[in-house]
Amino acid sequence: MVGLGLIGSELVNQIKNQTEKLKKEKGIYIQVNGLSEVGKQLVDPEGIDLDNWQAELGKSNGPVLDLEEYVLKIRELNLPNSVLVDCTASEKVTEVYTTALNNEISIVTPNKKAASGSYATYKSLKSLAHTKDVRYIYEVNVGAGLPVISSLNDLVLAGDNVLKIEAILSGTLSYIFNTWDGSQKFSEVIKQAKDLGYTEPDPRDDLNGVDVARKVLILAREIGLKLELEDIEIENLVPEECRHTDSIEGFLEKMKKYDEEYQQKLEKAQENNQVLRYIAKIEDGKTKVSLESVDSSHPFYNMKGSDNIISYTTERYKETPLVIKGPGAGAGVTAGGLFADILRIAR
Amino acid sequence: MVGLGLIGSELVNQIKNQTEKLKKEKGIYIQVNGLSEVGKQLVDPEGIDLDNWQAELGKSNGPVLDLEEYVLKIRELNLPNSVLVDCTASEKVTEVYTTALNNEISIVTPNKKAASGSYATYKSLKSLAHTKDVRYIYEVNVGAGLPVISSLNDLVLAGDNVLKIEAILSGTLSYIFNTWDGSQKFSEVIKQAKDLGYTEPDPRDDLNGVDVARKVLILAREIGLKLELEDIEIENLVPEECRHTDSIEGFLEKMKKYDEEYQQKLEKAQENNQVLRYIAKIEDGKTKVSLESVDSSHPFYNMKGSDNIISYTTERYKETPLVIKGPGAGAGVTAGGLFADILRIAR
Repeated sequence: MVGLGLIGSELVNQIKNQTEKLKKEKGIYIQVNGLSEVGKQLVDPEGIDLDNWQAELGKSNGPVLDLEEYVLKIRELNLPNSVLVDCTASEKVTEVYTTALNNEISIVTPNKKAASGSYATYKSLKSLAHTKDVRYIYEVNVGAGLPVISSLNDLVLAGDNVLKIEAILSGTLSYIFNTWDGSQKFSEVIKQAKDLGYTEPDPRDDLNGVDVARKVLILAREIGLKLELEDIEIENLVPEECRHTDSIEGFLEKMKKYDEEYQQKLEKAQENNQVLRYIAKIEDGKTKVSLESVDSSHPFYNMKGSDNIISYTTERYKETPLVIKGPGAGAGVTAGGLFADILRIAR
Repeated sequence: MVGLGLIGSELVNQIKNQTEKLKKEKGIYIQVNGLSEVGKQLVDPEGIDLDNWQAELGKSNGPVLDLEEYVLKIRELNLPNSVLVDCTASEKVTEVYTTALNNEISIVTPNKKAASGSYATYKSLKSLAHTKDVRYIYEVNVGAGLPVISSLNDLVLAGDNVLKIEAILSGTLSYIFNTWDGSQKFSEVIKQAKDLGYTEPDPRDDLNGVDVARKVLILAREIGLKLELEDIEIENLVPEECRHTDSIEGFLEKMKKYDEEYQQKLEKAQENNQVLRYIAKIEDGKTKVSLESVDSSHPFYNMKGSDNIISYTTERYKETPLVIKGPGAGAGVTAGGLFADILRIAR
């Protein structure tokens, strides 16, 4: 494992609590042999004692290997079904993926940087995993623990033809537009979401749509579209002049100038019995992320909290789509998704 | 393959259309070596020519092996990753599952009879598959191509604790209660659904709730409940005196006596801004199938056509559940689901 923040720690704890049951009931032996975070590392050929990992990691004061060496050290242990679990969001960590796959180590990760990086990177990692007969699983890149990518893969693999994908893929923007009824100003709703911890430290990182675009880019690639991030039409919810303000407070202040504009959008939707939703859409080879108005006949009309929703319309799911809905973020569900992916490799 | 009705035929055609692509793009070689239906059989060690299978099967006039011999003949071919695909709804065919698994042949099937049969049968087939290191996959038993069982398995395997399962699992009953607004009599809506081909030949086989109970029984077992079909509380929508009428016409005629009673149920729901839904529910170890009234805050309020919907509330999906929705019947989506399951074994 690399990265022991919220998600990484939760995953270690989930593994700890489930190890005995998996052994007894499923004959699956799971062992954590390496833990690595900035400045700290622990490697144990016999498996790290998970009852005590935080203390052990804290005490470790040996030399910290660079990630390349760390992966090779895991390889030396020569264990069956080795998996590198990257729980960081770091582009630098993805540079070690090729080494891992080349050494028959599978990868399971919530880190979107590789799968939504250049198409060449995405493709070469997938090919390498295939050649080496290991897995590169980035299922939780989209919708966290929801079975989004695997369901799409199943459709495509079984020869179905995907006609349209529509999705709400940002928990933050989902929350904002599910909550905002017009009684508050738009800038106030943003501030409130930030104060509740629902946004990135800088809310512009949610509002600019890039995170959603990265997710839908992955879905587009899964159905065979050779796209780059630049090919996606993104409606940036941060007005031009607010993008380059240095401070978050400055941004929120400037944003007030646009409250009236957003209020009008909302009122126009409400007059037509519609609601605003920030929707990612793939259709006819084109991929778009934008603020849309939808009425009660649309499956995205009724949304709660910060839920994600994904709708696949295909040749076989034509009259009504296949829809998956639920929380698309949070340490528990994300780590649970990673854990299920790790077990997929064990099986 | 056993059973070449609507679903079986569709599956053969889906495989035919996808064989080249799977070989070229995924390195997966798929081959149909046996086709069997009542009175007809075709076995080809080199793989049956799928462009011509119906004609070939029609011409075949050799001796028809019994299923036990048929399975053993497939075993003799000694092919890697052999799969028995049972596309019948026959209890008799399930009797051959043990022979298949004992001979390292995996099973993929939409046939619910085994997984919803006695708990002993369910458990022994699963254990045998595990011991023999092959798969017994009955994913499409519930919700057809929707990823219902696999998602639930992932949750449980990764240590999540399932608190509640709610589901609409009958396309027929979904259609009936999504369509019926009170302007028609209940018996008329049943007749209409039958005329449109949405029901079993005898609509009582849908209305009695047994099919839904079989499905929810499987879900209950997947989360560790050792239940038999008799343990499920089923609200039979067919009034007592209509159950034993011989003819379908006789049943529909007698049903008219109960139109008033059902009309009152609907009106009472409508007065409270609720709708009627036939819901399967697992909570606190108890499993129930019944007609319920739900309001607009419930995820099952907005339903279309004959969609199924499944909602998992767990320790990790507590505030909002993981929800999967879409058509839960139909040859295209069911065969597509089976095809994806077959490919899971290939991978």
